[in-house]
Amino acid sequence: MVIVMKPGSDKSQIEEVSKVLESLGLGVHISKGTERTIIGVIGDKRVLSNVPLELMPGVEKLVPIVESYKLASRTFKPESSIVEVNGVKIGGKQIVMMAGPCAVESREQIIEAAKAVKKCGAQFLRGGAFKPRTSPYAFQGMEEEGLKLLKEAKEETGLLIISEVTSEKAIEIADRYVDMFQIGARNAQNFHLLREIGRSRKPVLFKRGPSITIEEWLNAAEYIMSEGNYNVVLCERGIRTFETATRNTLDISAVPVVKSMSHLPIIVDPSHAVGKYQYVLPLSKAAIAAGADGLIIEVHPNPRCALSDAAQQLTPEDFRSLCRDISKIAEIVGREYEYCEQ
Amino acid sequence: MVIVMKPGSDKSQIEEVSKVLESLGLGVHISKGTERTIIGVIGDKRVLSNVPLELMPGVEKLVPIVESYKLASRTFKPESSIVEVNGVKIGGKQIVMMAGPCAVESREQIIEAAKAVKKCGAQFLRGGAFKPRTSPYAFQGMEEEGLKLLKEAKEETGLLIISEVTSEKAIEIADRYVDMFQIGARNAQNFHLLREIGRSRKPVLFKRGPSITIEEWLNAAEYIMSEGNYNVVLCERGIRTFETATRNTLDISAVPVVKSMSHLPIIVDPSHAVGKYQYVLPLSKAAIAAGADGLIIEVHPNPRCALSDAAQQLTPEDFRSLCRDISKIAEIVGREYEYCEQ
Amino acid sequence: MVIVMKPGSDKSQIEEVSKVLESLGLGVHISKGTERTIIGVIGDKRVLSNVPLELMPGVEKLVPIVESYKLASRTFKPESSIVEVNGVKIGGKQIVMMAGPCAVESREQIIEAAKAVKKCGAQFLRGGAFKPRTSPYAFQGMEEEGLKLLKEAKEETGLLIISEVTSEKAIEIADRYVDMFQIGARNAQNFHLLREIGRSRKPVLFKRGPSITIEEWLNAAEYIMSEGNYNVVLCERGIRTFETATRNTLDISAVPVVKSMSHLPIIVDPSHAVGKYQYVLPLSKAAIAAGADGLIIEVHPNPRCALSDAAQQLTPEDFRSLCRDISKIAEIVGREYEYCEQ
Amino acid sequence: MVIVMKPGSDKSQIEEVSKVLESLGLGVHISKGTERTIIGVIGDKRVLSNVPLELMPGVEKLVPIVESYKLASRTFKPESSIVEVNGVKIGGKQIVMMAGPCAVESREQIIEAAKAVKKCGAQFLRGGAFKPRTSPYAFQGMEEEGLKLLKEAKEETGLLIISEVTSEKAIEIADRYVDMFQIGARNAQNFHLLREIGRSRKPVLFKRGPSITIEEWLNAAEYIMSEGNYNVVLCERGIRTFETATRNTLDISAVPVVKSMSHLPIIVDPSHAVGKYQYVLPLSKAAIAAGADGLIIEVHPNPRCALSDAAQQLTPEDFRSLCRDISKIAEIVGREYEYCEQ
Repeated sequence: MVIVMKPGSDKSQIEEVSKVLESLGLGVHISKGTERTIIGVIGDKRVLSNVPLELMPGVEKLVPIVESYKLASRTFKPESSIVEVNGVKIGGKQIVMMAGPCAVESREQIIEAAKAVKKCGAQFLRGGAFKPRTSPYAFQGMEEEGLKLLKEAKEETGLLIISEVTSEKAIEIADRYVDMFQIGARNAQNFHLLREIGRSRKPVLFKRGPSITIEEWLNAAEYIMSEGNYNVVLCERGIRTFETATRNTLDISAVPVVKSMSHLPIIVDPSHAVGKYQYVLPLSKAAIAAGADGLIIEVHPNPRCALSDAAQQLTPEDFRSLCRDISKIAEIVGREYEYCEQ
Repeated sequence: MVIVMKPGSDKSQIEEVSKVLESLGLGVHISKGTERTIIGVIGDKRVLSNVPLELMPGVEKLVPIVESYKLASRTFKPESSIVEVNGVKIGGKQIVMMAGPCAVESREQIIEAAKAVKKCGAQFLRGGAFKPRTSPYAFQGMEEEGLKLLKEAKEETGLLIISEVTSEKAIEIADRYVDMFQIGARNAQNFHLLREIGRSRKPVLFKRGPSITIEEWLNAAEYIMSEGNYNVVLCERGIRTFETATRNTLDISAVPVVKSMSHLPIIVDPSHAVGKYQYVLPLSKAAIAAGADGLIIEVHPNPRCALSDAAQQLTPEDFRSLCRDISKIAEIVGREYEYCEQ
Repeated sequence: MVIVMKPGSDKSQIEEVSKVLESLGLGVHISKGTERTIIGVIGDKRVLSNVPLELMPGVEKLVPIVESYKLASRTFKPESSIVEVNGVKIGGKQIVMMAGPCAVESREQIIEAAKAVKKCGAQFLRGGAFKPRTSPYAFQGMEEEGLKLLKEAKEETGLLIISEVTSEKAIEIADRYVDMFQIGARNAQNFHLLREIGRSRKPVLFKRGPSITIEEWLNAAEYIMSEGNYNVVLCERGIRTFETATRNTLDISAVPVVKSMSHLPIIVDPSHAVGKYQYVLPLSKAAIAAGADGLIIEVHPNPRCALSDAAQQLTPEDFRSLCRDISKIAEIVGREYEYCEQ
Repeated sequence: MVIVMKPGSDKSQIEEVSKVLESLGLGVHISKGTERTIIGVIGDKRVLSNVPLELMPGVEKLVPIVESYKLASRTFKPESSIVEVNGVKIGGKQIVMMAGPCAVESREQIIEAAKAVKKCGAQFLRGGAFKPRTSPYAFQGMEEEGLKLLKEAKEETGLLIISEVTSEKAIEIADRYVDMFQIGARNAQNFHLLREIGRSRKPVLFKRGPSITIEEWLNAAEYIMSEGNYNVVLCERGIRTFETATRNTLDISAVPVVKSMSHLPIIVDPSHAVGKYQYVLPLSKAAIAAGADGLIIEVHPNPRCALSDAAQQLTPEDFRSLCRDISKIAEIVGREYEYCEQ
């Protein structure tokens, strides 16, 4: 950290700040510039988290130099992490595909969806059982019944199961059915929930909040990791901007940026980012071309009958065509996606 | 709702859509324009929440006409609501002042803060016991110990107590100590928590999420109200924008906009909006001038020793001067704030 | 400026950077931290504007410490500036009111508007002659004819004239008619136009671009000032955010922030910020309460007949009531606005 | 357009609105809903551009149904446009590559850059001669001297020349040297300049403003086209958001969205979007995978010596590797890019 002193700050103020730093075991380096003096702080700044340096007389501002998260940072762990979920590796050479309907609606729907996505090479079946919706009057999910149907679909197809959890109670229930938890965008800074997930050892797909920076996202991931759960996979799903043509703005740059700041795998959710199925295909290809480790995509056997987010769900036919293209793009960027034409 | 058909849509597609609407008991009005046909839908659109009209052949888009929240809307309840908290009315003629430190840190600190704000006419003591922080390594609050100290401060001064709750567990504990719950910005779309608060009948201060629109905020308030808790007071606390000179951008327009869309009271939190104490005074005056029903402000007996958000907390002296000005501005806008000079 | 070196940077890389800095006459201060080395740069950093330090081996990033604008900064000129426009002082004790229709439409309309706003104490008549509009098919202004009508209104009422200029040609024409130029939001980074205005000595009202930071705004003001025109008055008029309930989001915090970063006067345009006349009154009061030096407000003798932005223009009656309140709020914040009840 | 009446509006108000519409030759369709009445307006709404319907008694709001631009819309011209620039087609099967340094700095630099990008299959040489910069103290470009050097490079290599114009004067000068004009992001709503470009018939690359919606962008393109210049190529270059890890946020969704709303070609500028060369490669691949018609990329023979935006310029080696990958991705998405390995 660097402490910038105000233009008119005097010697005694600089000494006062230095004294506080030294009393905490930190080193101090003073540079007198032509307009301002700056104080470089050396050592582990976490001892400063409760010290209001910015209020000391003569201090103008504090400039952080080192990131505030640790376990999630590439500085801490330079090699890329691979998160393994019951045999499937996320973050390795293989592109991971998670697909399925927005919400679980019935046995028939989820089994049909599962078979369709399995055929195209998907490793995970997704399907919402606990659904956070903007309006309390919209369909809120089948809860445990939905999870049971997901498990049936798993038994039928061998797909791994991922589903969102929105509370401690939901974690406890879902733990019996799913292979991987999902934390949704609206809970990205629900620190209570993040700590609970951190106490589990089950892998978690952690979606970015629609208005948090990549740095805040990695800090939020740190909440999970600092409780001991290192099996975190990040998921970019669009951020909130002034543009209204799409539901959110897919921050495609987040893929290479996260790869440079963190060792954690990152996948992309184009369905929620844009909210319209016709844009999902080009954005999925873009995500893999940009280096994403996988995709999570909404596929519904019959989107016109879907109970939620109908407009963003692909038909099985669209999905098949998407997987074929993904498999080719994966190869060009040095990855693999096993799509077997039937 | 209005359904806009695509330029080339044909008669049979329009009939198909009409048939679906009529089968659900809705009325239909068709207008053929020079470029597009539009279909007006008449009746309670909630029966449509699970019908993916936007996927029907020939449909271009759906345009909502009526807001999706009901209990929170001024259309539903034209007169302004007053929320009463153990004798103090929020939303009436009286300006309500909630003040106190960001976090409860010690008996001495909270009692001193309580006495200082009481002297200036504040009706509520605020103080965080459960603190959501960006980094897991920052001070997370004293939890139940903090709530006990708040209660002591209440006994000493007669101030009402407001404190943030971040989980079901926290609600259960805080219920024994506080007069009003607070839902923080990062939980503004934690619908699970909102439902829990809705099951209580205790008044709640509901902060806007940093990136939710006013419409989404009112929908989130609807989660609380639809469970039966109508004692909701809204709190504007800054939204996320590209500007970096302040922590958030205080959306001052939200005050008159909320007043026109909803009957709920609204107060303003300038401390979190800007993050720098020197801007809190001008923004507090602006908020009351714009018609806010009150303020929630961070005051610390000794900001330089604060364990969190030191830079945004006022000294008791600053707060006294602020209250004096607020009392004068209140009068000009037809309100009252009893500030007694000592 | 501080140069942050990468975690693994070696001694020779640090020496290389130091050598470049020293060869340009800059001083160097090296601090070795536990994770990174940082290099403090001492002297006038403008010699570095063309030196790509961030590409040198071992360099992680550059952190600016001193602002990049100079003439506009309060560091450079600590006392607040007063801009005088033919006898009216902007930035002094007097609140300045600029009012009039969005666009000049006819002799009758502008004279009527001028008389109405004059009666309420306004010192300036505003009225667009060159109108930048989102669509090329919307009314684009009366151009020179409009300016002539403004001059007639001036002769009739004694009001000073302010009008927007959008090109070199428009500057040349308007120079013969107006007392103060206005640069509109969409030209806030049209540096060619800013330089042209800088070559004039006529005062200029410089609106913030809807998506530029306060720092970029002050840099843009620097374009005007560095050509020798120091008569710059800033105008906050709303920034672009995700919120759609208002046309833009009025950044009320910009008032105290600009006052702390710059010595230039700042006024507020609530009409363009919100786009709806019913919100203009509360926001005008808020702006003065927050410390603004004045307001620019749209007033139309008959808004229902306006040719542009009808929804945001006040009637003369609304404006009278606004001025009465402004005069009272001004007093509380230590300012004056002479509103004479008739 | 649909006019939504307020809940309490009465019959006479609805009749009044209808009368105004009919007097302008428009058709009227009234739908009475359970809560509100809506009025559908039929005919060419441009006759309404100066009629303030939103101020009529009983009117709540206006909801546009048809887009406000015409020449730029796909409704108007369903087939995709191809813009031909002296033999090179933009928007056809061939991917177009524009490359070169941020700014022209010297004969040696530009010739070397031109040869390097020519070798990799680029069809255009880019290079700034008129440089808009945030600070007036940064390098502002070589102006006409720079254009002469670009022309020399063209003679040497056969590359077409594209360069930014920032004023009428610049258009006049550049017209003698360049094959295609560029309008920069900061001038995206400088309507005066857009009209001037519209009066030329020379093709123009029109960059999106950092905070304009796609709809506003197409309206701005309409300014150029309504003057008769239909040779417009759009360029997405990042929008302004709260994220600070990249200079702007590349709105990759803009590619398929523009393709669905407009017939105009669209290319992507990843260099300005992210501002860091290491992210340019993944984003370039993403852009082509998403369906962009081309790329404009900054390449400098020696980025460490660049006079502007050094951090975002690729070396010729990096560019070669990028072109190789682009050529492969192009094939997968049904396009072509002729990269000849040497």
